[in-house]
Amino acid sequence: MSTFDAEDPVFQLHEGGKMAVRSTVRLASREDLSLAYTPGVARVCSAIEADPSLLHRYTWVGNTVAVVSDGSAVLGLGNIGPRAAMPVMEGKAVLFKQFGDVDAVPICLDTQDADEIVAIVTALAPSFGGINLEDISAPRCFEIERRLDEALPIPVFHDDQHGTAIVVLAALRNAALLLDRKLEDLRVVVSGAGAAGVAVTKMLVAGGVDGGQVVVCDSRGAIHSGRTDLNDAKAGLASLTNARRLTGGIGDALEGADVFIGLSGGTVDESAIAGMAPGGAIFALANPTPEVDPAIAVRYAAIVATGRSDFPNQINNVLAFPGVFRGAIDAGATRITEHMKVAAATAIAEVAVPTLAPDAIVPSPLDSRVAPAVASAVEAAARRDGVLR
Amino acid sequence: MSTFDAEDPVFQLHEGGKMAVRSTVRLASREDLSLAYTPGVARVCSAIEADPSLLHRYTWVGNTVAVVSDGSAVLGLGNIGPRAAMPVMEGKAVLFKQFGDVDAVPICLDTQDADEIVAIVTALAPSFGGINLEDISAPRCFEIERRLDEALPIPVFHDDQHGTAIVVLAALRNAALLLDRKLEDLRVVVSGAGAAGVAVTKMLVAGGVDGGQVVVCDSRGAIHSGRTDLNDAKAGLASLTNARRLTGGIGDALEGADVFIGLSGGTVDESAIAGMAPGGAIFALANPTPEVDPAIAVRYAAIVATGRSDFPNQINNVLAFPGVFRGAIDAGATRITEHMKVAAATAIAEVAVPTLAPDAIVPSPLDSRVAPAVASAVEAAARRDGVLR
Repeated sequence: MSTFDAEDPVFQLHEGGKMAVRSTVRLASREDLSLAYTPGVARVCSAIEADPSLLHRYTWVGNTVAVVSDGSAVLGLGNIGPRAAMPVMEGKAVLFKQFGDVDAVPICLDTQDADEIVAIVTALAPSFGGINLEDISAPRCFEIERRLDEALPIPVFHDDQHGTAIVVLAALRNAALLLDRKLEDLRVVVSGAGAAGVAVTKMLVAGGVDGGQVVVCDSRGAIHSGRTDLNDAKAGLASLTNARRLTGGIGDALEGADVFIGLSGGTVDESAIAGMAPGGAIFALANPTPEVDPAIAVRYAAIVATGRSDFPNQINNVLAFPGVFRGAIDAGATRITEHMKVAAATAIAEVAVPTLAPDAIVPSPLDSRVAPAVASAVEAAARRDGVLR
Repeated sequence: MSTFDAEDPVFQLHEGGKMAVRSTVRLASREDLSLAYTPGVARVCSAIEADPSLLHRYTWVGNTVAVVSDGSAVLGLGNIGPRAAMPVMEGKAVLFKQFGDVDAVPICLDTQDADEIVAIVTALAPSFGGINLEDISAPRCFEIERRLDEALPIPVFHDDQHGTAIVVLAALRNAALLLDRKLEDLRVVVSGAGAAGVAVTKMLVAGGVDGGQVVVCDSRGAIHSGRTDLNDAKAGLASLTNARRLTGGIGDALEGADVFIGLSGGTVDESAIAGMAPGGAIFALANPTPEVDPAIAVRYAAIVATGRSDFPNQINNVLAFPGVFRGAIDAGATRITEHMKVAAATAIAEVAVPTLAPDAIVPSPLDSRVAPAVASAVEAAARRDGVLR
């Protein structure tokens, strides 16, 4: 994996980076210069000093999101640090632009201290219209997002949590439609209680799944309220899920379950999924190696989804984050509420409905209809929730 | 000044901001996505993890500069804070792109604590190929620049100091050429001992002016080694300049002087400049109001320059900073040395030499020959100094 090869097409594409800045104003004459820069610009500065709300209208801040990472949990690579994380954050910025017309700036921080990250992002906030947190390891990511969300008057969104959660909810909504099941009747097992596992579980419950019928497993097995080894986030899951207080491993949890959602990076034995109720759904989302080989999963489930582009039903965050921020920005939202996330999931699902099929429960990541639909739904939800500047 | 008027052409031009991000790679197919983002991007991440020097080659970091301000000393507006400073930093970023093809990101920080600014910019450093400090008030700017320059392996450049200093040296070099005087024979008075005054004085001495014949005045008059009210920066000036230990006000300092350089924002009485030696030069660089009205200055000096675009000889930092960073980046420089700055000044001056005239001692800010000439000279100087990654 780490072999550098300048002839590799991936490296050739990355040479010189994947993005650039461009001016949106003409600077061809002294007159142009005197409007865009001194002395004219001073009038805009003074107007913003008198009325800070003009910042978003008269600078690029109004359309700009910082993609912030500390490089502690990057893809499946783990804690590779801020420099090695940069190609991912830059790629994210490119996706923001392409799908959401959002100007995003990759910011990789040379610290993994939660207090420092909160202080730095707070200090950076005047320069950006939103903060997309990315690839920050759990459980620090929960605290960092919560504190920034409370402190800042702009949307803060940890994509590994909520982007994933939105797309999983969209996929499960359409899977239930195909299977002619109601969300609230499904028995769901979530494998993984990191950033994605926690957020997906909460989002499913917000979207209509019965929390009592969800069982979340971490590396020690089913999470239940009798366990004494749980961090705050997992303790929250214990009270939200597993009404039966089921104990044991993933195999025990899967016995008779309708839905498996893998967000762990580990693998699950065929014998464990063989115990699921027939005709259900398996979302094996670990990248690059799904928790269950899709070729095996299809033997036990009617619908199989992965995180990979080379199998059907790719659960890809790019379906969510560009439209979520586009809609939040267009609304002038100060934060991203649960309703806005559920609205995003519904919008994604609805784009796929007219062509719904077991191998097409979510739109393609390249479907250009998705981001505008998500943006519109998110903007409307922000207005309903009244979280406006 | 602070009246907001949406119909004002300045506000119309600023609507939506002056810059945007663009992708430099195609994302039209799943194959494109798999190269620019997951799973392909993971190979670039792993390569950078193994060899961090690849960061500059395979991300936009290699061509990117952060324009960092705390909004404490913006134009002639003073301490207007980070939000109101943003239009200036964005304008700077646009100039970086237009003249130097450098991708610059405006970063306005919501703190004016020197320790915090140093910590934040240090943490941001993996994301950028250089740091342009801007509109940070003296004397904090000196400490912040020094500490960052020592801490970071990328160029750090406080433009209010060194950009101004480079262009003033270029202008004075050509003024001396026109006046048939040697730099080392000139008696120079600098009005202002803030960021620009300190840096201009040092740069003039590095460029060939005799420090002993320079007198710097602050608001209390001539700076000399007998004064006990000097901060570190001014104490440094006292030992570098004013060999005669001249005391008194600006009028005393100007008696018989050949050159006046105004960097103070205050005004100077006509009676004071009337005492200058005939046939000299007046650079009245305060914006928007020069220290001496150019219409009056021409009565007492052969050459008059200002910071304004509506008079001849505009001393504008845009002649320096785009080429300085372009050259530093092209060299892979780790810092910006005195030699690199002097080389930049010489390059700017030489572009103007073929058409040298009392009203054309520096090139126009829009002269597209300047930045490439500066870049080439700065790159060569960086190689000579061996300050390479």
